[in-house]
This record gives sequence, structure tokens and C-alpha cells, in this order.
Amino acid sequence: MSESLKQRRDRLLGSGAPLFYAEPLHIVRGEGVSLFDAAGRRYVDMYNNVPCVGHCHPHVVRAVSEQAATLNVHNRYLHEGVLDYAERLAGRHHDGIDSVVFTCTGTEANEVALMMARLATGGRGIVCTDAAYHGNSAEVRKLTRNRSTDGEVRSIPFPETYRHQSNDPAGFYLERLREVIGGFERDGVPFAGMLLCPLLANEGLPKIPDGFMPAATDLVREAGGVVVADEVQAGLCRAGRWWGHEVMGFRPDIVVMGKPLGAGVPLAAAAASRNIVDTFRRGTRYFNTFASSPLQAAAGNAVLDVIENEDLCTNAGKVGAEIRRRLLELQPRAEAMGDVRGHGLFVGVEWVSDRDAKTPDRDGAVRVVNAMKDKGFLIGNAGAFGNVVKIRPPLVFSHQDAAAFLDAFEETLGELDVR
Amino acid sequence: MSESLKQRRDRLLGSGAPLFYAEPLHIVRGEGVSLFDAAGRRYVDMYNNVPCVGHCHPHVVRAVSEQAATLNVHNRYLHEGVLDYAERLAGRHHDGIDSVVFTCTGTEANEVALMMARLATGGRGIVCTDAAYHGNSAEVRKLTRNRSTDGEVRSIPFPETYRHQSNDPAGFYLERLREVIGGFERDGVPFAGMLLCPLLANEGLPKIPDGFMPAATDLVREAGGVVVADEVQAGLCRAGRWWGHEVMGFRPDIVVMGKPLGAGVPLAAAAASRNIVDTFRRGTRYFNTFASSPLQAAAGNAVLDVIENEDLCTNAGKVGAEIRRRLLELQPRAEAMGDVRGHGLFVGVEWVSDRDAKTPDRDGAVRVVNAMKDKGFLIGNAGAFGNVVKIRPPLVFSHQDAAAFLDAFEETLGELDVR
Repeated sequence: MSESLKQRRDRLLGSGAPLFYAEPLHIVRGEGVSLFDAAGRRYVDMYNNVPCVGHCHPHVVRAVSEQAATLNVHNRYLHEGVLDYAERLAGRHHDGIDSVVFTCTGTEANEVALMMARLATGGRGIVCTDAAYHGNSAEVRKLTRNRSTDGEVRSIPFPETYRHQSNDPAGFYLERLREVIGGFERDGVPFAGMLLCPLLANEGLPKIPDGFMPAATDLVREAGGVVVADEVQAGLCRAGRWWGHEVMGFRPDIVVMGKPLGAGVPLAAAAASRNIVDTFRRGTRYFNTFASSPLQAAAGNAVLDVIENEDLCTNAGKVGAEIRRRLLELQPRAEAMGDVRGHGLFVGVEWVSDRDAKTPDRDGAVRVVNAMKDKGFLIGNAGAFGNVVKIRPPLVFSHQDAAAFLDAFEETLGELDVR
Repeated sequence: MSESLKQRRDRLLGSGAPLFYAEPLHIVRGEGVSLFDAAGRRYVDMYNNVPCVGHCHPHVVRAVSEQAATLNVHNRYLHEGVLDYAERLAGRHHDGIDSVVFTCTGTEANEVALMMARLATGGRGIVCTDAAYHGNSAEVRKLTRNRSTDGEVRSIPFPETYRHQSNDPAGFYLERLREVIGGFERDGVPFAGMLLCPLLANEGLPKIPDGFMPAATDLVREAGGVVVADEVQAGLCRAGRWWGHEVMGFRPDIVVMGKPLGAGVPLAAAAASRNIVDTFRRGTRYFNTFASSPLQAAAGNAVLDVIENEDLCTNAGKVGAEIRRRLLELQPRAEAMGDVRGHGLFVGVEWVSDRDAKTPDRDGAVRVVNAMKDKGFLIGNAGAFGNVVKIRPPLVFSHQDAAAFLDAFEETLGELDVR
């Protein structure tokens, strides 16, 4: 019996290397918002944020190909392309984000951000949420679904207004933050700061209590800490503005960027004030062989070109709003759609088995995701309970694409007898 | 006054972002073994191991460009190119290295290797050398110039025969290894294994006592640990054979690969038995967005094509031997050249201010490196004392290239009045 592609993959990459869908896809080509499998079938990509300008955008392909043919070397020589890109990327932020440390992955950028926060403050204690994911290294993994009440990394319950019941949700979560900061003080762990995704993407993209983020930022700073925004998922126009923290109304001291930056060329970054970055450089002599390369800069610059030239921030805002509007129309007829939320082209639908009890229904979300795949639309599921249908297409997603998706989604609700 | 390129770099990347040479180079183009600066001046690259097949090799550029234009997406779909590459890379190793976990950087691959070693053994204790560097994350940094006698990572003095005085150097260092393993046992830290560069590249590429590596491997396994070979610098034909551990005569349980794999497309890997990799997958659910991508595979496959088609393993062995032969001829006339050593196209010359006392002369090594740069040849300095002149050209380096370098090197010795 011949070995299937899945068996071969298990043998060569190990059993359990993550794979999407009950019946995995065998994708061979990408173009714009489309992915094509080996049989030539088209799928509309509504999951991938890395190819934010669309799969295989010709401008990006050209820039990467030309740079690969010209020079691709580490950053211990001077190179203007790298500096142009750093200047452009920093320039997309508020004053006080001046300098950039490039890395290859979001994990590495969060490693750098943690070092920056600790060197800048002299502290060690970091606050995250209890349903976060920021990367796969030993240090950054300490922030994964953290429930610690001791140690250097401790969490607050992720702030949200869907299940939380009180008159003052922001106040409730701020009090949790005060308690964790107080705990660090009590235990003699000097405080370094807070690291959050501004949209709490892995937590399930919840509605964050009004005013929580700016007030939390103030609280962290008053306690001598710095605020790190992990913009790996939220940033680069995903939420209809350049950065998630702009949507949420706060100004971080350190910004971590990743996934969409290089359109699939591994590229991530941690940016901060010149002072914080200088302190980091002095304290670590950090070097990353493949980072700050001309290839990274060419990819990164080309992605910024496309976002600016095609006005993708505006597109993400408009098309995303249209998707949410039509999902909200469907919601009254589909009890399982407990909550519809999101910002720009980052949309979440919380799937529940009982709308009043708000019981998370992960299996229901997975059924919808697989049924939509069979119809040719690729979405995912995520969140603290795995029950949030995650809709996150490339930023070039059009109103027509959205209409086709919403028709298929409505049809699927009927076929799965979702009410 | 206008801002210099260096000032601009300090502002945008932070002061102290590592830079080579007293007068940094402004490199704009690469081709084969040549790098060209903004003024059009050619430099012979004798430092960079990432572009192992030569800068901007047309076969690699074509493969990367075509893949970037076809598909570049994460690995949660099936993709044959990724599996073909994993199979080919694993196939270049001894039986028992079956499965591969791809990452973007050597740091990440060492993170994975540490997790593999710990999950495979149930242990925590790791032995490294006291002058190693394996990466820049918080966990892997514990192996940087480690002098710990407690904790989970502890070191032995790096084994070498230049300064060490005894009749049985291998026995001496094996005894140190036994002590560290015994210390873990005494302190209740279950033993996980040993992680070494097979050539001890960062330690300064010393002559390793005959028989040390195979005996140390046995010792580690008898104590229930696994052996991790960090082949990031030593591997992929650098030392005249596919892997450094083949040169040193031992078979690791886990192999870490990096720098040269992707010719500058960020690509690294940790490979091991199917059993170890399955255990790792089960224990971690590890996922790395940019890794195991079709782009990585295209770059990796193209690099293997060139190495095989141009027989670069053989070339590295032959041209490297010629370089060492001529350096050994120069040595009697230049007292500063304390020790000439290496394997294949990885050559080190230990610079000393007193040949009998073997006093490390870092400043002298740096002077030679800068003088050679002025002559158009790029080399570096490294090692436990920073005094080892490091010669590590792309694997396509020819006999003519070597002759030109050696003439310039001899001339430089005269000009610097090195005797």
C-alpha cells in the first residue's frame, strides 16, 4: 500500500505537526485572496494574515526576487534598504517609537520585547492575560494561558464584556491588574510591565471594556512598568487602522510586530524609543544572523508600498464593517451565534450551545469551519474556549468577496440546521 | 551637518547594533565569493557561511523567485516540497535521524532541541562548554559562556590541546564531564544531555583531544542523556564532510542545523529519530508560522542541489587543506601565529603575543582582520579570547581565490611587522 501524503508528513515532520481541517488541504498555489489545491479547486482565503496584501502579490514577488539576486547578507555591514525600512516602519507609529530591532519571528520579537522591558525598568515581573499566546520559546511560553500566582510572569483574567457581569467591567479588570502588580511588590519581584495583544486576538477577540486599555496603561506606568503591545496579529491595518493600539486608544512603550510584515519572508520586529533600544543594545549585544537583512527590508518595504498604494487600511475598515453588519443580521435567527465582534478585517463569532447560558460550543464552531471549507471558504476557530469562528482574510478582500462568503455562510447555517 | 549612514543606523537600529570592522563596510551587491561596496570596490568574502553556495547563486535565486510567485504559506496545509526537503535533509544523516522540525533561526532550532532532549529523557540538566554560543533567546542564552555550577545548565571547560597540558587530555575533559553529570545527580537535577558544536566553532575551533567526542557521547548516553550536535556552523559540508559530527566521529541523537541551509532565506531545523520528534510534537503542539513553508523548502532544496551538483563537500576539503598547508608554512616566520587549525573551509589561526606563554592577542587578531579588509579580503576574529583569526569563505571558494588570499595574508604579515 502506498504511503499517503499525510502518512509521509507524519513520518518526516512527526505525528501531530499541526494541520487544519478534518480533511487536510493540499494547497499548491496562491493568488490574491485565492488558494488552489492540487486538484485545481479554488478556496477563498479568509484565514491568513501573513499574505496581507494577497498571496503572491506581483510587487512583493518582484522586490523579493530582485533583492535575492542582488544581495542578501547579515546586518554587520551598512545597508540603506534596511535603514529605509526601519525609518518607514517606525514612522508609522506615535512619537516615542523611534528605533527598531528586527528578528525573524514573532516569538523572537517578543523575546526582545521582554528583554527591553526588563532592561528599561530593572524589573522582572510581567503581566499578561490568562488566555494569551505570544510565541513558542521557553521564555515566551511562560505567557501562554498563564495561571501563575507566583513567579515572574502572572496573569489577569482577559478583560471582556460578553460573559462578565458587573456595572463596571473596566473597574473590575483594573482591580485584578492592581492585585497582580501588588502581588509582585509583596513578593519582592520588581515590576517590569504588561504585554498584551491590543485586540486580545488569541483570547477570542472579545469586546474589551471601554476605557480598560488606556487606564491599564496608566496603572502600569504609575507602578514603574512599561507597556508592550504585541501587534503580531492586530497590526498593519488588520483592524482598519495601522495598529491595534490606535483602535483601543493607548500608546505602548514597546511595539512587537510580525506575521504580515514580510508577506511570508520571515520578518518580525520590536520597536521602542531610542533610549529603550539603546539600553537593550548595551545590555545584550543582541545579534540575529538572518534579521535586518536586505531581503527582509525588500519584502517589508514592498508590503508597505502595497498597503499605502492600495489604501488597504481603509479597505479593511469598510469591508470588515460590512461583514459584521451582515453577520449581525443573521444573529437573531441563529441562536448559536452568541456574539459577533471584531475590528476591521478581524471578525469573531462566538459559538454557543445556549445563548442565555453562553455555553461555549467548540464542536459547533469546528463544524462550521469544516463545512465552510467544503464550500471553498477558509476560516478557523480560536479563543479561550476554541469556540470563536475566526474570520481574517487578506486585507485586499473586496466587497464582492465578502458577499460571496456571507451567502455561503448563511447557506451553511441552514444546512447545519443552526438556529 | 548631514547625518552619516552610521549615525542614521544608530538612530534607527540603536547604538551598538553589531557592525564589523573599525571602518564599517557599505555593501550593496554580492556575487559568488565577492561582495561589492557602494563605491564599486570588490571584497573577497572569506567570512560568511550563510551564502555557502556563493552570494546570489542563480539556481537558488530562481528557485526562491519561482516559489515566491507560486505559493508561500504556513505549514498547516499539506505541501510536497516541504516533505521532499525534509526527506532529503534527513537522508543526509545516519540512520536514526528520520524526522525534522523546521524553524526560522538557529536560536529557535536550539530551543526545539532543548525541548526534545528534555521531553525524550524526562530530564532537565544540560551540559555545554564554558565558551559556547548557541543563540539569543532567554533559554538558549543560558548556554552562552556558561560558568554555572548549579542550575539546569552547567558547563565543562571546552576540550582543547593547545593550552591544556597533560598526558591524557581526552581523559581530563571526560573527567570534567563525569563531574558535571555527577553534580546534576547529587543536586537532584535529572540529566537530559549535552549540547555542543562538533567543531567548537565559537570556542575558537580548537584541536579537540582525540577520542573525546565519541567517548563523551557514550558517557552521556550511559547517564541517560541524549547528545545534541549544533551543526549551525559546522554542518552542510563546511568541514569537508556533510556534518561536523562525522569529522569528529560521533553520532548525535539530535542534530541542529541553521545558517547555510537557506542561502539567506531564514531557515533552520532540529532533526532526530521519529520517536523523539513524535514525543516533541505530543508534548508541545509546537507551531512556527514562517517555518516549514514552501519558500523555505524551495531555498533549502536549491542549496542542496548546488552542493551536490558542484561537489562542494570535496571542494571545501581540498581548498581548506591548501589554505592550512600554506598558513603552516608561514607559521615559523610569524611568532604571533600560535596555532593553525580547522577542518575543510573552516580555518582558525590563534594569535598570541608570546608563542611560549600562548598569551592570547585579541588586538593583534583584530589588526590583521582590519588590514586584510583594507586589502579586500573579509575575515573575522572569534574564540574564547577573541584572538582566533576566523577564515570561513563560501564553499565555492577556489584554489585561485585561496592563492590570492594567502599572498595578501603574507604581505599583511610583513606590513604589520608580524614575526
